[in-house]
Amino acid sequence: MPSPLLPPALLGPLYSSAAMREAMADHARLQRMLDVEAALARTQARLGVIPRNAAGPIRAACDATRFDLAQLGVAAVSAGNLAIPMVKALTEGVTRRDKAAARYVHWGATSQDIIDTALVLDLRAAIDILDKDIRRAVAGFARLAKRHKYTPTVARTWLQHALPMPFGLKVAGYAAALTRSRTRLRRLRKDALVLQFGGAAGTLAALGNRGLDVARALAKELDLPLPDAPWHSHRDRLGEVASALSILAGTCGKIARDVALLMQTEVGEAFEPAAASRGGSSTMPHKRNPVAAAAALACAQIAPHLAATILAAEVQEHERSAGAWAAEWPTFPALALVTSGALAAIVDIAEGLTVDTRRMRANLDLTHGLIMAEAISMTLAKTLGKAQAHKLVEAASKKAASSGMHLKDVLLEDKAVRAALSAKEIERLFRPAGYQGVAQLLTERLLASAKDGK
Amino acid sequence: MPSPLLPPALLGPLYSSAAMREAMADHARLQRMLDVEAALARTQARLGVIPRNAAGPIRAACDATRFDLAQLGVAAVSAGNLAIPMVKALTEGVTRRDKAAARYVHWGATSQDIIDTALVLDLRAAIDILDKDIRRAVAGFARLAKRHKYTPTVARTWLQHALPMPFGLKVAGYAAALTRSRTRLRRLRKDALVLQFGGAAGTLAALGNRGLDVARALAKELDLPLPDAPWHSHRDRLGEVASALSILAGTCGKIARDVALLMQTEVGEAFEPAAASRGGSSTMPHKRNPVAAAAALACAQIAPHLAATILAAEVQEHERSAGAWAAEWPTFPALALVTSGALAAIVDIAEGLTVDTRRMRANLDLTHGLIMAEAISMTLAKTLGKAQAHKLVEAASKKAASSGMHLKDVLLEDKAVRAALSAKEIERLFRPAGYQGVAQLLTERLLASAKDGK
Amino acid sequence: MPSPLLPPALLGPLYSSAAMREAMADHARLQRMLDVEAALARTQARLGVIPRNAAGPIRAACDATRFDLAQLGVAAVSAGNLAIPMVKALTEGVTRRDKAAARYVHWGATSQDIIDTALVLDLRAAIDILDKDIRRAVAGFARLAKRHKYTPTVARTWLQHALPMPFGLKVAGYAAALTRSRTRLRRLRKDALVLQFGGAAGTLAALGNRGLDVARALAKELDLPLPDAPWHSHRDRLGEVASALSILAGTCGKIARDVALLMQTEVGEAFEPAAASRGGSSTMPHKRNPVAAAAALACAQIAPHLAATILAAEVQEHERSAGAWAAEWPTFPALALVTSGALAAIVDIAEGLTVDTRRMRANLDLTHGLIMAEAISMTLAKTLGKAQAHKLVEAASKKAASSGMHLKDVLLEDKAVRAALSAKEIERLFRPAGYQGVAQLLTERLLASAKDGK
Amino acid sequence: MPSPLLPPALLGPLYSSAAMREAMADHARLQRMLDVEAALARTQARLGVIPRNAAGPIRAACDATRFDLAQLGVAAVSAGNLAIPMVKALTEGVTRRDKAAARYVHWGATSQDIIDTALVLDLRAAIDILDKDIRRAVAGFARLAKRHKYTPTVARTWLQHALPMPFGLKVAGYAAALTRSRTRLRRLRKDALVLQFGGAAGTLAALGNRGLDVARALAKELDLPLPDAPWHSHRDRLGEVASALSILAGTCGKIARDVALLMQTEVGEAFEPAAASRGGSSTMPHKRNPVAAAAALACAQIAPHLAATILAAEVQEHERSAGAWAAEWPTFPALALVTSGALAAIVDIAEGLTVDTRRMRANLDLTHGLIMAEAISMTLAKTLGKAQAHKLVEAASKKAASSGMHLKDVLLEDKAVRAALSAKEIERLFRPAGYQGVAQLLTERLLASAKDGK
Repeated sequence: MPSPLLPPALLGPLYSSAAMREAMADHARLQRMLDVEAALARTQARLGVIPRNAAGPIRAACDATRFDLAQLGVAAVSAGNLAIPMVKALTEGVTRRDKAAARYVHWGATSQDIIDTALVLDLRAAIDILDKDIRRAVAGFARLAKRHKYTPTVARTWLQHALPMPFGLKVAGYAAALTRSRTRLRRLRKDALVLQFGGAAGTLAALGNRGLDVARALAKELDLPLPDAPWHSHRDRLGEVASALSILAGTCGKIARDVALLMQTEVGEAFEPAAASRGGSSTMPHKRNPVAAAAALACAQIAPHLAATILAAEVQEHERSAGAWAAEWPTFPALALVTSGALAAIVDIAEGLTVDTRRMRANLDLTHGLIMAEAISMTLAKTLGKAQAHKLVEAASKKAASSGMHLKDVLLEDKAVRAALSAKEIERLFRPAGYQGVAQLLTERLLASAKDGK
Repeated sequence: MPSPLLPPALLGPLYSSAAMREAMADHARLQRMLDVEAALARTQARLGVIPRNAAGPIRAACDATRFDLAQLGVAAVSAGNLAIPMVKALTEGVTRRDKAAARYVHWGATSQDIIDTALVLDLRAAIDILDKDIRRAVAGFARLAKRHKYTPTVARTWLQHALPMPFGLKVAGYAAALTRSRTRLRRLRKDALVLQFGGAAGTLAALGNRGLDVARALAKELDLPLPDAPWHSHRDRLGEVASALSILAGTCGKIARDVALLMQTEVGEAFEPAAASRGGSSTMPHKRNPVAAAAALACAQIAPHLAATILAAEVQEHERSAGAWAAEWPTFPALALVTSGALAAIVDIAEGLTVDTRRMRANLDLTHGLIMAEAISMTLAKTLGKAQAHKLVEAASKKAASSGMHLKDVLLEDKAVRAALSAKEIERLFRPAGYQGVAQLLTERLLASAKDGK
Repeated sequence: MPSPLLPPALLGPLYSSAAMREAMADHARLQRMLDVEAALARTQARLGVIPRNAAGPIRAACDATRFDLAQLGVAAVSAGNLAIPMVKALTEGVTRRDKAAARYVHWGATSQDIIDTALVLDLRAAIDILDKDIRRAVAGFARLAKRHKYTPTVARTWLQHALPMPFGLKVAGYAAALTRSRTRLRRLRKDALVLQFGGAAGTLAALGNRGLDVARALAKELDLPLPDAPWHSHRDRLGEVASALSILAGTCGKIARDVALLMQTEVGEAFEPAAASRGGSSTMPHKRNPVAAAAALACAQIAPHLAATILAAEVQEHERSAGAWAAEWPTFPALALVTSGALAAIVDIAEGLTVDTRRMRANLDLTHGLIMAEAISMTLAKTLGKAQAHKLVEAASKKAASSGMHLKDVLLEDKAVRAALSAKEIERLFRPAGYQGVAQLLTERLLASAKDGK
Repeated sequence: MPSPLLPPALLGPLYSSAAMREAMADHARLQRMLDVEAALARTQARLGVIPRNAAGPIRAACDATRFDLAQLGVAAVSAGNLAIPMVKALTEGVTRRDKAAARYVHWGATSQDIIDTALVLDLRAAIDILDKDIRRAVAGFARLAKRHKYTPTVARTWLQHALPMPFGLKVAGYAAALTRSRTRLRRLRKDALVLQFGGAAGTLAALGNRGLDVARALAKELDLPLPDAPWHSHRDRLGEVASALSILAGTCGKIARDVALLMQTEVGEAFEPAAASRGGSSTMPHKRNPVAAAAALACAQIAPHLAATILAAEVQEHERSAGAWAAEWPTFPALALVTSGALAAIVDIAEGLTVDTRRMRANLDLTHGLIMAEAISMTLAKTLGKAQAHKLVEAASKKAASSGMHLKDVLLEDKAVRAALSAKEIERLFRPAGYQGVAQLLTERLLASAKDGK
């Protein structure tokens, strides 16, 4: 049976990592719901809230492989959520083992406690998977950044040549941005992924005066923080997690966009790793399609809308919403999956990017020296003043552009310029590596932050 | 293997209809891609573009059950799309049958021709499924509208009692809105779902001067309109279809919101069909959760964001995008599925809504006659003038509100009012059915439009 | 006082056309609300529903220049909408003229009738403004398409060179896509922009049995279609209009993305019109920033989210929503504005695009003939069979790529190829214009559709 | 001239706070751009990067009141952004004062440095304004929570009565959720709102080896953190701020939805503050429209889409985007405004909510005791066992529902029940305040967290 959102086998791999598909699979998510039930029973037995020997049979029955997923899915339609038929099936399972214990399944809990806490566990698993892949991507870009710390390339603004910059600074920026996402997700893993346990109305009434004890112990059992109170009707933490996922996908999209542009036939400065049957075309042998970049971009275009679905679903009625809550259920795994897909593509790029430094150099020369006009102007300003320097360079640039001459040759012929600069100095000014300000310092700072992120 | 967007079995049924799940399943969607290949071969053989006997073996191999879906999904990652590995596997399949015919697989076509035209076939199938369910929902609401053409109920604005209205007008509005969606989808099925066939660059160059002939015949073969030119880089028609799906989901959401509100414990005027284990709670026996309405609302909250994904993906580079195109692939089936899910819940409601007319009547009385204040005022205005009438009714209303008396009793005691109206007339004015303007006429007009929509 | 959404003067021009800013200005929108009140009075006077001489004073007072906009805005906060303080101020205005007439202001209407019908008038004005600009853009692109019907340029897929195509086909595609938006908006202007008139509860109760007569006459007076019934609680038509606006913005974004890519320093094939102080940089003299394209892209990125806001707001409670309805009010003018901004930038491009055909030709040669590999292969296939042809060309392509030789020279040296093709034939095969299939035919079809669209 | 997004005066007040309108006004935002220029000059003069006496005249000219806003807005269209014409006008302004100083305007900076850093200052101002309003709302809800710490009310799940809960817990939840938003925004104010200063290509090349010194000093001057490197092409921090704003709007929407539902005619438990001409209707005297709640809900429905616009705009090309960057400009002030609007409405509610505790009590009785079924069942379970207790209560509930009897009376008549419970005990079990678990404890914890948030 297909997904509410997508036929699984065909399109799964293009939009998600294998690890995330495994973690968000039906059986894995159901198991997390069962893990919450098992932990609840264990905790309550320990605290004497339920009989001590009730926990064993409950825990034994909390095994997702014994549940009929398709039947649960259908039963959820009339129940309104998955937890109700799951608890029913679980109770039957426990009954088969120990009739007495079956009374204590789901004791004092409500469906939302199970669904929300399992979601928190889902998201924790998702963050852990993303963490690993971010680390790989950061390591790859850090290596590239060190290797190309001094490699001059074109900085492009508005898709136009601006000035030279070292390629290392560009990829160090990728590493640092990914590291910020990692830090963000780690913080949320610790602060936002908290236990939900409130009972039918959020008062834990069914547990009498033991509610908070059980909650505290359950949180510990699941290694989750205990919030001040149940949050069934306040979804702000979830909004933060959804946004952080989308932000990571967006950073992946930014990197992917750069790579797709660098791979353009006319630019050709960097390429995704080559492989047999990858991104090629037998009848168009010159093609090298940016397939990983395109996958990352697709995911990055999908993610913000899924995040917005979660943000919009924050408006939930009273103590449990009819509708908005259910809008979260299919959206979160989808968001985790596409974020993993964006990131997986970026890992592939970070670990295998081919850089063509000669092409970078050639592209720097494409404007016949005009890309160095600002550098020349700033140097001349020291002796001629800013206004005069600017005027000279502007005239020379126009001449270069109209005549097709290299700006250097125009300047070498210009008497006013030559009065201020020797031929050798002019020659040196046209080395792109010579006009990069504090780029290397910035690269080092970025890489240090990426290292700290570890 | 789970979906890029959702574990399929567990959450599928809550967010989609069974028919749509079948239509959007991996194998069904792959089959449509193969259907396009088969139709292409058949068409080209008929036109003599490929050898006449090449079509048979190609067609025979175009059978989705013979493909390894999981392998195709994985291969799509390095190929960048599903069509490339599919064509490769198809060619192998044909080769096993007829080596010579295998040369003519996918002749003159490009991946996008297959993927986009198959998407068009997907969407046509989706619209046909929705069409049937809309018809059912419209029929259900039309029946209710006729039955309750004169049943007075409270019209609520800003979630406050406004005036009486017949319940039939309310549900006739549902039928008519759904009919407009049906008309919209039918128009798009005819106008927007057109063949995509352009070859590698949209010029059909590989077919020499036969390109348009093949395109025309292929369109006919697939029963699709032939557009003026391939539309691989212009996705406006898809934006229209995505929006129409979201609009339908939105209408379902509107109806569902009304139903959820009517089912409130304090309102209790209408209810989703009851069933064993439906929307109930064993420990809270008074509960009757609006589970269908909640499902429809969840779907209606998800759909606009998926539609926006398609609208945003309209910005595609040159003759084939790297990224935005792929953002459409998982989004369209997801959108079709959640739209079907919203609609399925509404069909359930339309065919089984329980209406409590006594409760409606009781709620009309909840404000002790104040809901009729406008009616009284309009009647008094005929004899006393608007200003004086308004003044009298305002004073009487205040007295009723502060004293807890029924407005009718206040008016009966009011000499100025009694000078204008007899006790009998006052009595009659408080019949809610007596102040409904042209409501029945409007109901008839809406139902007529719903009928025309058939 | 600034806008709820944006400081007006500074950012207005970049994101909207002057005509749309005028049409969506406070005073213009308030005037449309007053136009509805005036038309209502006129209509009701004519039908004898209100005194014949009440219409004149009401109409005279319906002049937006006499209203204090800032005061109305503040009063709307406690009233909940603009119509309530507007009607109050209008009534005061009429009272100053004719106390008796003042009683008949807004007779039988509700706030939503005025706000929604005025919105419909706003959107009609917006569509008319867009219509004119679409016509200009279409005319510009049609001219370019004719001029470049045979100009070979590179077709790019995945941002990689694919095959040659005529530039005319590309811009004819722009003209046709814009024409489809025009057709779409014109249809909606006629079908979706309908009168809203239902009174307090949608039953027109306050008008007794005259409700439908008044509605019919009011629709005629405002030159709007009369729907089957009031649509205050069903917003599907608005969803369609919002989507159509976003789709138009998306088409503009698609064109803009192409232009920004073509303007890249490394590509340089087409440019936005040049002007003093336009998109340049004094210190980076080679820059020619795609400022119009960037504006269109920004608008195209904003629009889908505004459209989604409208689509999501379809879920409105009962007979008048608390919240969702008000979400439409600031969103629609914003959407109309950014759509006009995207389009204005495209008009600028369509009317002034500079095309560098020499650069196009040079870029076609960038892959040393590999871009013609498919063409060669298709020709050789006629004599050598597809498999053998493909094998030969693949080998030659590899040799060309590794050696830096032009593919033509490799082929000229290849004995197997020369056995099938003469040097002259090979020479001819490398003319890009020779491998464009039915491109000109498609161009003509697209231009014909664009003409029909007029 | 109106806004790109909205006519300002009419709709401003409904969707924003007065303080935020002032802070996001054209002149205020322009002043922040000028503040960055002034700080840059001052810093560079101090460091000796520009002549010491250049700073004075520049600073003096950095006065927004001297600029022609409308002209800047128009000039931005051909320049592509506001900073270019602003710098030009500023340079002219400085020239009039001191020709020599004019050379050092904007020294070493690029447009994006000014625009992005000014945006950071805008957002800091916005957060400070929101902080104050959150504090007010939290204080209001904390007062209500203390007052109603023991007031029993109905907890509603799925819009159905669930169990009793104290009203104080509900509003303490509002206070705590708002406090979390405040904490979130404060953290972002400190961590995410950092200086952008990178020069034309992000290398600070024009400042030679002084770039980082200037950046550090400029950050200090503006009281902003210095990031590891310029972030012109990495917008993840902005995504986080946008999300946090939307999350706050969402929390406001959640509260508003509750209030709108509580104000329903049939529920009537809590009301927005009453005021003359507020949310009323002269012809429908019973109405008390939730106008503040509706405004908050409208804002909460708009905000997620604006946040998604920012998240999607993260995909920016190379060192400066053509399009996506500009998509941020009108979106951020809009998002700040609607967030302030949502919050202002909630402040109004928090400070003036009227609570009808008698109505709450009456509604608790609406199900004739069924709302206490779980409490009875839990108590009986202690003596009769869970299964037997449940069975008894289920039967009694059915009898109560079908007969219209109060559950208490059914139980009093039930021998099996009476064997376990005395009449007095049964009586006591039906006190709603008696079944609230750890609600008061949770309330205290929430209020403590709200206090810590101060």
